Amino acid sequence: MSTHSEKDRSKVKRLPERALYDRDTIDEIVDTALICHVGFIDDGQPLVIPTIHVRVGEKIYLHGSPASRMLRTLARGAEACITVTHVDGLVLARSAFHHSMNYRSAVLFGRGSAVADDGQKLEALRALSERLIRGRWADVRPPSEEELHKTLVVAIAIDEASAKVRTGPPLDDEEDYALDVWAGVLPLQLTASAPIADPRLAAGIAAPQYATGYVGPRPL
Amino acid sequence: MSTHSEKDRSKVKRLPERALYDRDTIDEIVDTALICHVGFIDDGQPLVIPTIHVRVGEKIYLHGSPASRMLRTLARGAEACITVTHVDGLVLARSAFHHSMNYRSAVLFGRGSAVADDGQKLEALRALSERLIRGRWADVRPPSEEELHKTLVVAIAIDEASAKVRTGPPLDDEEDYALDVWAGVLPLQLTASAPIADPRLAAGIAAPQYATGYVGPRPL
Repeated sequence: MSTHSEKDRSKVKRLPERALYDRDTIDEIVDTALICHVGFIDDGQPLVIPTIHVRVGEKIYLHGSPASRMLRTLARGAEACITVTHVDGLVLARSAFHHSMNYRSAVLFGRGSAVADDGQKLEALRALSERLIRGRWADVRPPSEEELHKTLVVAIAIDEASAKVRTGPPLDDEEDYALDVWAGVLPLQLTASAPIADPRLAAGIAAPQYATGYVGPRPL
Repeated sequence: MSTHSEKDRSKVKRLPERALYDRDTIDEIVDTALICHVGFIDDGQPLVIPTIHVRVGEKIYLHGSPASRMLRTLARGAEACITVTHVDGLVLARSAFHHSMNYRSAVLFGRGSAVADDGQKLEALRALSERLIRGRWADVRPPSEEELHKTLVVAIAIDEASAKVRTGPPLDDEEDYALDVWAGVLPLQLTASAPIADPRLAAGIAAPQYATGYVGPRPL
């Protein structure tokens, strides 16, 4: 994965003070997000589809039905743009113009290919599950051979990536600080609430700790 | 805005039981989301950029710096795919295969054009602000003429849209219901916490109710 800023395609053209290219920053954004948005071109048309993802080294793995237009297109080697976004807060400035958001986003580019080997598919599916909710995989019935064959797994080899991050309070024009307007940040976060048991859950099966104390997606 | 399922481009090919095309469903998904992800093609390359949006009738308005590659490309009339996603929960099934997410997503297609008129730009900016945090606009210094000229506003006339929604408990294979595995839904939601005042906030300015009791983006 190259994080070179000189590559024009992933260069952040606006607000360069918010552009970051270091690998650790990008990885952390990708690895702690629930979902990504995958952009690709199908028949000349841009398409953007949300899906779960996992990064293993310099590859992003996606999965789903073999009938998925996104997965079929990427499996044929199409170029993908994978964008991952965390919204961290609304930034309320004294002027309309300087309102903003605190956020962390990463934009990754690479080409897809299908993962054909059953062992590699199983490993990618385990990684997808474990990143999202650590500990779940060991508790559930693993995929059967038939289920594996009904699942398309695509690997995207990332060759360029960049990140943008905004943090901190609003930055107003100097003369606006005298205005009688509240200013600051309204923090936002994705939170889990109490697990809801399946109506068909058998009596006596307690919700596992990884659900009652869910900490969100975590790097593998 | 057409919501006809027969249009191939926005047809949901997978899991047709999750596909919804009614206008109210699509509007509600779009109008209550903090951000969207905008897909477009630049120099043959798919790009996906997160940004805030507002729907007014059958148009989506985006805004930002005139240097933004996304906005410049769309202002020239490029085709956009605007995807809006709410993640509502992790669906924990008894088998790995039947794990899923509860979510609501909308995919919109249309072409962009720049909004040139200052009055229309101002109205779009007000709508962007009011959808995200109702009441804020009246409290802040409005954009100056210079600030308006430093803001590019793009309208996307939506001509096709579709939605996908999953709700409810996991759906396991019948024989798996006998397994000794907890199953259910872990609800997720974006929540606001207490506003953080700007360190330079003057004494005696209280946080407004729209910040202390933030209810999220709401339809105009």
